[in-house]
Amino acid sequence: MKILVINAGSSSLKYQLIDMENEQCLAKGNCEKIGAEDSFIGGSAHGVKFADKQRPMHNHTEAFNVVAEVLTSGETKVIDNLYEIAAVGHRIVQGGAVFDKSVLVTPQVVKDIADLAELAPLHNHAHVQGIEACLKVFGDKVPEVVVFDTAFHNTMPEEAYTFAIPYEYTKKYKIRRYGFHGTSHRFVSDACARMMGKPLKDIKMITCHIGNGASITAIKDGKVIDTSMGLTPLDGFAMGSRCGAVDPSAILYLEKKLGLDPDEMSNLLNKKSGVLGVSGISSDDRDVKAAAEDPTHPLHDRALLARNLQWYQIRKVIGGYIAALEGVDAIVFTGGLGENTEDMRLNICNHFGFIGVKVDPEINAVLRKGKGGEISTPDSSVRVFVIPTDEELLIARDTRDIVNAL
Amino acid sequence: MKILVINAGSSSLKYQLIDMENEQCLAKGNCEKIGAEDSFIGGSAHGVKFADKQRPMHNHTEAFNVVAEVLTSGETKVIDNLYEIAAVGHRIVQGGAVFDKSVLVTPQVVKDIADLAELAPLHNHAHVQGIEACLKVFGDKVPEVVVFDTAFHNTMPEEAYTFAIPYEYTKKYKIRRYGFHGTSHRFVSDACARMMGKPLKDIKMITCHIGNGASITAIKDGKVIDTSMGLTPLDGFAMGSRCGAVDPSAILYLEKKLGLDPDEMSNLLNKKSGVLGVSGISSDDRDVKAAAEDPTHPLHDRALLARNLQWYQIRKVIGGYIAALEGVDAIVFTGGLGENTEDMRLNICNHFGFIGVKVDPEINAVLRKGKGGEISTPDSSVRVFVIPTDEELLIARDTRDIVNAL
Repeated sequence: MKILVINAGSSSLKYQLIDMENEQCLAKGNCEKIGAEDSFIGGSAHGVKFADKQRPMHNHTEAFNVVAEVLTSGETKVIDNLYEIAAVGHRIVQGGAVFDKSVLVTPQVVKDIADLAELAPLHNHAHVQGIEACLKVFGDKVPEVVVFDTAFHNTMPEEAYTFAIPYEYTKKYKIRRYGFHGTSHRFVSDACARMMGKPLKDIKMITCHIGNGASITAIKDGKVIDTSMGLTPLDGFAMGSRCGAVDPSAILYLEKKLGLDPDEMSNLLNKKSGVLGVSGISSDDRDVKAAAEDPTHPLHDRALLARNLQWYQIRKVIGGYIAALEGVDAIVFTGGLGENTEDMRLNICNHFGFIGVKVDPEINAVLRKGKGGEISTPDSSVRVFVIPTDEELLIARDTRDIVNAL
Repeated sequence: MKILVINAGSSSLKYQLIDMENEQCLAKGNCEKIGAEDSFIGGSAHGVKFADKQRPMHNHTEAFNVVAEVLTSGETKVIDNLYEIAAVGHRIVQGGAVFDKSVLVTPQVVKDIADLAELAPLHNHAHVQGIEACLKVFGDKVPEVVVFDTAFHNTMPEEAYTFAIPYEYTKKYKIRRYGFHGTSHRFVSDACARMMGKPLKDIKMITCHIGNGASITAIKDGKVIDTSMGLTPLDGFAMGSRCGAVDPSAILYLEKKLGLDPDEMSNLLNKKSGVLGVSGISSDDRDVKAAAEDPTHPLHDRALLARNLQWYQIRKVIGGYIAALEGVDAIVFTGGLGENTEDMRLNICNHFGFIGVKVDPEINAVLRKGKGGEISTPDSSVRVFVIPTDEELLIARDTRDIVNAL
């Protein structure tokens, strides 16, 4: 059984074709700059990277047709025709209170996802475009499944997911902490338990998914008990371009000062804040790191501040979750920064030396670019792992299970 | 030297007359319901409580005249006339980036405090009314000093006080973490160091001022390195009627759903949220505790949730600060709840048993109503204290020092 996993963004469409017989990735790639003049597709087939292909992609449907072309023809061909694909699994950011597990796509499901879009303005609209484009290209013979970033967090206790706003609004508008990156946290927590040779339920674990978006999760008795993202992926700590938690009054104050309405303010806090906003350089840590390491860079001080601020906020979240878990057995780093940024990992872990966390700096320095492993020393009080996440594989597994049960 | 300490609220005026020769309180009290039909003054003189006196108080000036009457006449008399008062010290909530220490009142200082009012809408306007009323009643012969809740927190490092919003707004609008209750945190941290027989600079300390408003501070090398309140006293964890930290998107989402402007939203988050909003009962923990302990109360479940949520959020903040401090030697509870709510203290401390915190439940149970002491056991890894705060005394000391230097 071959499953196509789709992650549709507003101007991008990531795909991965997985053969479930051996859970091998046959092909993967990304359509970028959809809607722009210079849209292109890049990726790999059978593990071999292919040169970016410039293709006109005015919308997600045209992007899907490009994916189909790449999968079925030329040097990038991995299948003879689209009907070898048994099912499509979509990553969906916000499942709200409506979805507590992965489900088959129906018109009602699409409507529900669209209705939840105001809770995740950067994501859900794009997901619906992806689902609809998929239907146009594949027709209704190929089942589609949606897998939600929020679902893994549904085990949180009420005191962790409730915000201290008037309770009638919590209920009426379903305003609460949902959490995101659930698929990634689920994937790496399972992998970590296997690496430790223990059942997940016996491990107090903190999983740090740190990418451009970033969240941290506390897991106890095999269940999420808290997570840093909230109603939307904006909450928590400073991310690439998102502010994380900020005094609510500061939001309202800035709204007044700038004369912004809530949507404009949301855009500012989601897209112009975080490491980008503080550094003035980039939301990409590689650019900020370069400036932080170059004393002659005009924004050197702000680059240092942006990184220090993000790392400090991460350390506070981890500290809060150690308190919530009443101890910690394992800490996992994953996501773009978590997997690749050795100085961030070392900074965070070294500040937990006071509870006996010890990291081997040499091992830490070589774990990146998809290479995972344990970075703590044998005498560390807490085991620390770098685990490349694979949300696509988990989406494919959920999709297979749902389709097999039809 | 006798100093009158004033804490002017929007409809209240708390006073305390302190004889600085022996730091004894000669008289104290509170004008309540200023501006309402049934305004009254209550308090004590020479330690003897007097019966509430109904007095018309249409504004803060009339309230000051009532205070003058009470201090100088009848059974409540403690001084012969107002000119025995050498100086007046005012508590001011928000000193912004303008004030980093206590200062003498000048017209410019009053203007600056008024200009900062939008950062602390519940407080600064009332403080200005208090300063101006004082001038009308005492004339300009009696020096006035202002002592800021924010000043103790000025030592925070940039990564702790900076919000991850665009840096130009941080600078232009001075939007950052200032912290509040600084006078209280300073008072109890000094007292705790004395009780431990060590200089404050050698103690990693977490001070928890938990009253209707509440904040927690991390102190290292004798300096505040972080505090939970932010630009305004709204940030941090759930308080009596304030929401504390909430996903910024949840604020904007609720604003849209309810059609509220930023000022209306601020009012909702400051006055109708927190323990009051979650429980639907009261912002006063005594009322909520009664409902939480009565399974037949119609809001029993929500009362339990409100307290659990507040205590859980406090534990997470403490955990975050243990990480920030890289350890902790002492935890201090103060403020209305901190000094009087033994089940809250026990819940919080017991959840830190995993790092060796041990509290003697019998000692803990009897420390309240102004009685302070150590509640940790001799073998506790962290010393835990209940210390009744005395912000008025610290305000009086600062006032004396400034007036003496004139």
